[in-house]
Amino acid sequence: MSEAAATTRFRLTVEFDGRPFMGWQRQAHGPSVQQAIEEAAFAVTGERAVLHAAGRTDAGVHGLAMAAHLDIARDIAPFRLMEALNAKLRPAPIAILGCEVVPGDWHARFSCIGRRYRYVIVNRRAPLTFETGLAWRIAQPIDHEAMHEAAQHLVGLHDFTTFRSVHCQAQSPLKSLDRLDVSRKDDRVIVVAAARSFLHHQVRSMVGCLALVGQGRWTGADLKAALKARDRNELGLNAPSDGLYFVRAVYPG
Amino acid sequence: MSEAAATTRFRLTVEFDGRPFMGWQRQAHGPSVQQAIEEAAFAVTGERAVLHAAGRTDAGVHGLAMAAHLDIARDIAPFRLMEALNAKLRPAPIAILGCEVVPGDWHARFSCIGRRYRYVIVNRRAPLTFETGLAWRIAQPIDHEAMHEAAQHLVGLHDFTTFRSVHCQAQSPLKSLDRLDVSRKDDRVIVVAAARSFLHHQVRSMVGCLALVGQGRWTGADLKAALKARDRNELGLNAPSDGLYFVRAVYPG
Repeated sequence: MSEAAATTRFRLTVEFDGRPFMGWQRQAHGPSVQQAIEEAAFAVTGERAVLHAAGRTDAGVHGLAMAAHLDIARDIAPFRLMEALNAKLRPAPIAILGCEVVPGDWHARFSCIGRRYRYVIVNRRAPLTFETGLAWRIAQPIDHEAMHEAAQHLVGLHDFTTFRSVHCQAQSPLKSLDRLDVSRKDDRVIVVAAARSFLHHQVRSMVGCLALVGQGRWTGADLKAALKARDRNELGLNAPSDGLYFVRAVYPG
Repeated sequence: MSEAAATTRFRLTVEFDGRPFMGWQRQAHGPSVQQAIEEAAFAVTGERAVLHAAGRTDAGVHGLAMAAHLDIARDIAPFRLMEALNAKLRPAPIAILGCEVVPGDWHARFSCIGRRYRYVIVNRRAPLTFETGLAWRIAQPIDHEAMHEAAQHLVGLHDFTTFRSVHCQAQSPLKSLDRLDVSRKDDRVIVVAAARSFLHHQVRSMVGCLALVGQGRWTGADLKAALKARDRNELGLNAPSDGLYFVRAVYPG
């Protein structure tokens, strides 16, 4: 038996408040969610396991149920591992909500066939209190119905170059957007985006332009033209990271 | 015309995250919501107005729509006052959601005929991330239906001595509790309490004992017996301030 076969792969479901972090991925210049969990795992097991995730969120972006995995040689029950990680993670705002054993060929990133994000806009005059850093406040009234209608121009298979960070490392700007819904409940305008995968900054770029539509500064036709331009310079606005949540990852079966 | 008649009374609707405060009321030993708003009002108007509120919340308790009033001599429109207060309050987690002129005999505390509180329990194994200080986490599963049923023993006119802080300054321990409802949505168990007025710590004391019922450590009969005992020593548990929100104040008309 090879050494690799002697490890067990654990899938973690992770909730995190992104405010204090430089993002999910390890960074030389500041704290990351990945580093915090890897260090907690080392404290529990004495092993230097690498944590792989379904998505790499930017600085300030939050996670409700990020999927991740790591391989551990030590014999430990999933529930025990979860409890121990949560204890070691304190007081960082990271919680392991679930922990289960998965097959060795299951991969949080490469097995993932769907990703869902939520973007939270608080549409009110007053500044935020509880949600500072957790939502994008837009003071002037926005028309969520116009936003939803315009959003449908982006659904489907498109070249999303306009909505892609210049730092994006994806090989192709072609992505198939399955769903982009805008709804309102009281002063909260929620954007839900679903796709197999997204380009870097894609959700924030789409939401930024939808906000322009909501404010009446752009029409649906402007949004469509920006998409067709396939030019990052045609982007209207990139929404702040504050309101973005990785909601869940979908796997086969 | 007397000098008092030359002022205008403004009603404020205030949202605040109670985490950094020693409570609503001015304290010698730390920051309070009242002090923050009074100082903002002074910065705006140059007047030392006293802020009166429907309720005086404890340290760490939050407000979704606290009602308050203050008298200002300077001629200022309500919307301008609200905007200016919000600007001066930054970065404190206090937001003025509404501001309107009310008659000079309207009083946030004495005119109030109903108060509503919400208590948020997060019933899950994992530690809190986004809601640290904003909810009470109870790790073991609790039975919200048993809690709701037991809560009905407390509804009505009772001597709430058992559920009253020893520091309570109310003249009588008799209060009429209009509503005490317990409901669940996913891992959130919400307690809603409504009454004309409450004793000091009454909501937290009721919630603490209901949690014992939810955990199966108390029966509904135990709760009833604690009420009947009219003895603070019979209190099972006082819930932490974290999960308590002043929701709204009701006025005639």
